[in-house]
Amino acid sequence: MLEAGLVRQKNTINVAFKNIMDFIVAGLVYWAVGFGLMYGLGENGFYGTTMFLKAHDDGATAFFLYQMVFCSAAATIVGGALAERTRLSAYLAISALVAAVFYPIIGHWVWGGVLNIGAQGWLAELGFIDFAGATVVHGTGGWLALAAVLVVGPRIGRFDKTDSTMHGTNFPVATVGVLLLWFGWFGFNGGSALEFNEQVPIIIVNTSLSAAAGGFTLLSWAWIRENKPNIAVSLNGTIAGLVGVTAGAHIYETNEAFLVGAICAIACNVATRLLEQWKIDDVIGAWPAHAIAGAAGTLLVAVFGDVSAFADGNSRAEQFAIQATGVIVIAAWAFGVGYAVLFVLNKVMPLRVSEADEIIGLNISEHDATTDLIEFDGNLPLFGPGIDDIEAHSDDTAGNYNRVLDRVRREIEARDQSAQQQEKL
Amino acid sequence: MLEAGLVRQKNTINVAFKNIMDFIVAGLVYWAVGFGLMYGLGENGFYGTTMFLKAHDDGATAFFLYQMVFCSAAATIVGGALAERTRLSAYLAISALVAAVFYPIIGHWVWGGVLNIGAQGWLAELGFIDFAGATVVHGTGGWLALAAVLVVGPRIGRFDKTDSTMHGTNFPVATVGVLLLWFGWFGFNGGSALEFNEQVPIIIVNTSLSAAAGGFTLLSWAWIRENKPNIAVSLNGTIAGLVGVTAGAHIYETNEAFLVGAICAIACNVATRLLEQWKIDDVIGAWPAHAIAGAAGTLLVAVFGDVSAFADGNSRAEQFAIQATGVIVIAAWAFGVGYAVLFVLNKVMPLRVSEADEIIGLNISEHDATTDLIEFDGNLPLFGPGIDDIEAHSDDTAGNYNRVLDRVRREIEARDQSAQQQEKL
Amino acid sequence: MLEAGLVRQKNTINVAFKNIMDFIVAGLVYWAVGFGLMYGLGENGFYGTTMFLKAHDDGATAFFLYQMVFCSAAATIVGGALAERTRLSAYLAISALVAAVFYPIIGHWVWGGVLNIGAQGWLAELGFIDFAGATVVHGTGGWLALAAVLVVGPRIGRFDKTDSTMHGTNFPVATVGVLLLWFGWFGFNGGSALEFNEQVPIIIVNTSLSAAAGGFTLLSWAWIRENKPNIAVSLNGTIAGLVGVTAGAHIYETNEAFLVGAICAIACNVATRLLEQWKIDDVIGAWPAHAIAGAAGTLLVAVFGDVSAFADGNSRAEQFAIQATGVIVIAAWAFGVGYAVLFVLNKVMPLRVSEADEIIGLNISEHDATTDLIEFDGNLPLFGPGIDDIEAHSDDTAGNYNRVLDRVRREIEARDQSAQQQEKL
Repeated sequence: MLEAGLVRQKNTINVAFKNIMDFIVAGLVYWAVGFGLMYGLGENGFYGTTMFLKAHDDGATAFFLYQMVFCSAAATIVGGALAERTRLSAYLAISALVAAVFYPIIGHWVWGGVLNIGAQGWLAELGFIDFAGATVVHGTGGWLALAAVLVVGPRIGRFDKTDSTMHGTNFPVATVGVLLLWFGWFGFNGGSALEFNEQVPIIIVNTSLSAAAGGFTLLSWAWIRENKPNIAVSLNGTIAGLVGVTAGAHIYETNEAFLVGAICAIACNVATRLLEQWKIDDVIGAWPAHAIAGAAGTLLVAVFGDVSAFADGNSRAEQFAIQATGVIVIAAWAFGVGYAVLFVLNKVMPLRVSEADEIIGLNISEHDATTDLIEFDGNLPLFGPGIDDIEAHSDDTAGNYNRVLDRVRREIEARDQSAQQQEKL
Repeated sequence: MLEAGLVRQKNTINVAFKNIMDFIVAGLVYWAVGFGLMYGLGENGFYGTTMFLKAHDDGATAFFLYQMVFCSAAATIVGGALAERTRLSAYLAISALVAAVFYPIIGHWVWGGVLNIGAQGWLAELGFIDFAGATVVHGTGGWLALAAVLVVGPRIGRFDKTDSTMHGTNFPVATVGVLLLWFGWFGFNGGSALEFNEQVPIIIVNTSLSAAAGGFTLLSWAWIRENKPNIAVSLNGTIAGLVGVTAGAHIYETNEAFLVGAICAIACNVATRLLEQWKIDDVIGAWPAHAIAGAAGTLLVAVFGDVSAFADGNSRAEQFAIQATGVIVIAAWAFGVGYAVLFVLNKVMPLRVSEADEIIGLNISEHDATTDLIEFDGNLPLFGPGIDDIEAHSDDTAGNYNRVLDRVRREIEARDQSAQQQEKL
Repeated sequence: MLEAGLVRQKNTINVAFKNIMDFIVAGLVYWAVGFGLMYGLGENGFYGTTMFLKAHDDGATAFFLYQMVFCSAAATIVGGALAERTRLSAYLAISALVAAVFYPIIGHWVWGGVLNIGAQGWLAELGFIDFAGATVVHGTGGWLALAAVLVVGPRIGRFDKTDSTMHGTNFPVATVGVLLLWFGWFGFNGGSALEFNEQVPIIIVNTSLSAAAGGFTLLSWAWIRENKPNIAVSLNGTIAGLVGVTAGAHIYETNEAFLVGAICAIACNVATRLLEQWKIDDVIGAWPAHAIAGAAGTLLVAVFGDVSAFADGNSRAEQFAIQATGVIVIAAWAFGVGYAVLFVLNKVMPLRVSEADEIIGLNISEHDATTDLIEFDGNLPLFGPGIDDIEAHSDDTAGNYNRVLDRVRREIEARDQSAQQQEKL
């Protein structure tokens, strides 16, 4: 469980600070408000109304802890998609909203009854199965992320063909991130059994095989098509496999988990291309890898899951209808209400940094990330008497020197930028 | 528990080697000497005299392991404060002293009786409460660190206003460090229950809320005052919250843990300003974040802790007196004896590298950290025939070229230095 | 257990992608083929023939998971040794071979009977003791790695005295890697008890003391000889201590574990010098630190292990003969068959990248690792109109400008290379 939270930080190392603040804000808000909405007793199956500010009674503490991490994960997915162009205050406001409203209400629908019989949610009542949050956590985060990037808009230059730096990522860091995520997921999914029982090993094996299948599928696919291995694509496949298997990791055989991973990876890949085509700038691929892979995985529970685990003796078709209902309603709620709320919020308090800030801001917005380099940049003009000397040098080669120096400076600045980009996923 | 140790390495990545050596030396010394002093049977409540070199009898093994990590943590706190100007041999000597003497003796006073009734320490006898080491581990480490930095003195240029590079830190790495620390602390505090019982979840929730409260308090505080978020300050608040709650994580309600975190963060912040004012160069803020936040947290046990957990039916006031006694005695012992011992040690074997070494040494002392860059620097003069060619070029623009080249080289060297600094917390 | 896998990734961060692919490929192949070969029922003690593609029956799931990580670890050892000059497809083929054949068959000999009585292997029958894979995992990986580097050959320039960059490593990253490895090993060895019983703490303490002893031994040794601390050497000692104690961590006293770590570290150090002398380029020291330290540790079980744990009332001498048999046979199998298979494979599908690719390839083969910098490099010629302007500038200083620019570019490229090297262990 612990790794689960930690992992995302690594995965998107430049949003580390946002993420820790996210954990802080989302954690406090979830403790104060969200947990009660989610697990408190309710009358209608839509939200709970007890247990605010009070997470430690009635054996609910371990549960609270676990859900606090899930809730932060959902908030982190949104934040990742908004990277590089969003105000910190906006980011914190969104985190607080996710923790106070979006995540707990959806969570109540599906998991509300886990703690108190009387708090059973309407989707759980229907028989909706989402073992460890493929839709509750990843769907909520992914659809909110889509709403958020539509409200905020793409980064400047993101869809400008000539600016290739936008595509730069640091693969070793990303790979380590994915690996940590992978192992963290063992905690996510394994821990969702709520106790260490004989289900845990098969859950972990299924999680692992699905991740491997997702990565392998897209690796092979891209290799065949492009005749070389594409790392980014296969890492995405791995994440999609992890997300997808989450809905039913407890009721698959290992070969079924393999297929789930492969299918969710393909769904994610298709969705990624759609985003690219629609010119929607979702920095970490939150929508394809979380919302879409999560939706696919949630539906596949009805296709591959052990029928005996379905409620009320449902057939596969009946269960499929239930799963689809859950996926659609949650997507609609998260995306629809999310879009409306963020649209209004954006009018009240602009979510995005100013254009000027964003452009010079590759440094400034990243200030936190690269203080040293920035301080160095800031000091450049003071860097000894060199430049002035040369500028004052009035022979006719001075202009040329200056050109050389400018060039050097531009090259160094560009390397600074790449170095900073390197820090990111 | 395991994470707990690992975490600090990340947190101060450039002292990674010192830290592993620390773990090695402190671990071996604690095994050979410290554990017996701490948990062995004693006659007087001040130190134990059995169980040397023999950690695995009588169910003490898991215990030993746990304490070995605590002991290394205390040594690491001291080492962090001394970064960038201390000989490796001095550092190892200090680690050995902490593991052989400072930590075990203080530990015996408070925790000696945990393993053997007959080894009860005098502070435990009084009724002093320190659940997982807010004073035993962090107080010892923090006060020794203060003694050590006073003996060694600040880094050259640390309090020279014009040298801004000293303030550079790498926030993403630091943030990841704090996050790891946070999760590691779950192990620290959760594991201190010594078995997995129903207390563990509330301990972990309290730990987490206190950390969040600490971070949130200083984030808000700095934001209001400076009108922008200050990352370093809020990370320190998080650590202070973690340290502070450690003393009584098992006997707080969640809202009390919140208050403890907030108060300890403020105490840490005040202490940080004092250090700055006094021109004491404590690189990682060991004294504010460990000694002071730990002291505040230890005192707050009497204020917020569950009264029924106090020994002998003590009132809050009585318990406060006991807590204060423990805090003061341990601070006096660690700082006073520590200062004396290190003062003498410094005469016998200088703890500090030579001034020349320290100045050129941003590379040399960091040799371990950045071999490639250094080798590159070393190779610069040999870097192909370029320079000589140009220098031999006798037309009157040669001097100018050389000036340009020098400038480029200086810029690149400066960037090397920032890149190296970036590696540090 | 989880950490165990994750750890190696960190340790060799530039092979992170290879490693995740390794985990994916080795995991899938082991699931499909290897696990059955290893733990399936067999008739002869040499390999199993049941349980293919079916890891979750009969309480075998947790076991499967564990072994999947072990199997990936063996594959990772081979891959690390081959870094910087091997095709990705070759690497994946080798991983698949390790997971399908090499590891499972050796594993069957020693551990086959753990799951099914009827699957007892012939070495287990003899009484061979290898608690958590000092020979089964590390010996297999280390000897295969030696075979592989002999087939593939050293990196260009590796044994060229004037090219010092080859020796560059990034010690903080390596140190963090070692620390993670250390803690991961707690999982490796602790988990090998197969249940959490009273043996686990002593296993972990022994693991830790052996690692510390290994590191301390080589630290002291190098310090005495070279009069300064040698970090790389002491990190290797730590790893050797970890590997060595693995064979008998459950049947040592703490002081015996100390000796085991010290002796294995010395064996590793001697082997490292031999490789250097023989001009064999084993990038991560797979053979000294895994095969040789593992062999030493496996033999030392007979010297220091608790005699009552030996099968059939064997004396130390008898057990030593058995341990030696196991070590030799496994080494011969892994190295001999491995060399033959890889030799043939190399004819069919060259394992190594082309010479040109390797030279320019410090970037290209590392493409995955440093996309941004490479994209930047690629863009250099397009980097605004500067260069063309200057080149077109026809006064007689143009050539000189260009020389300056070339020099700048070369310096920047060299720094790019160091920055990339820095990413590696």
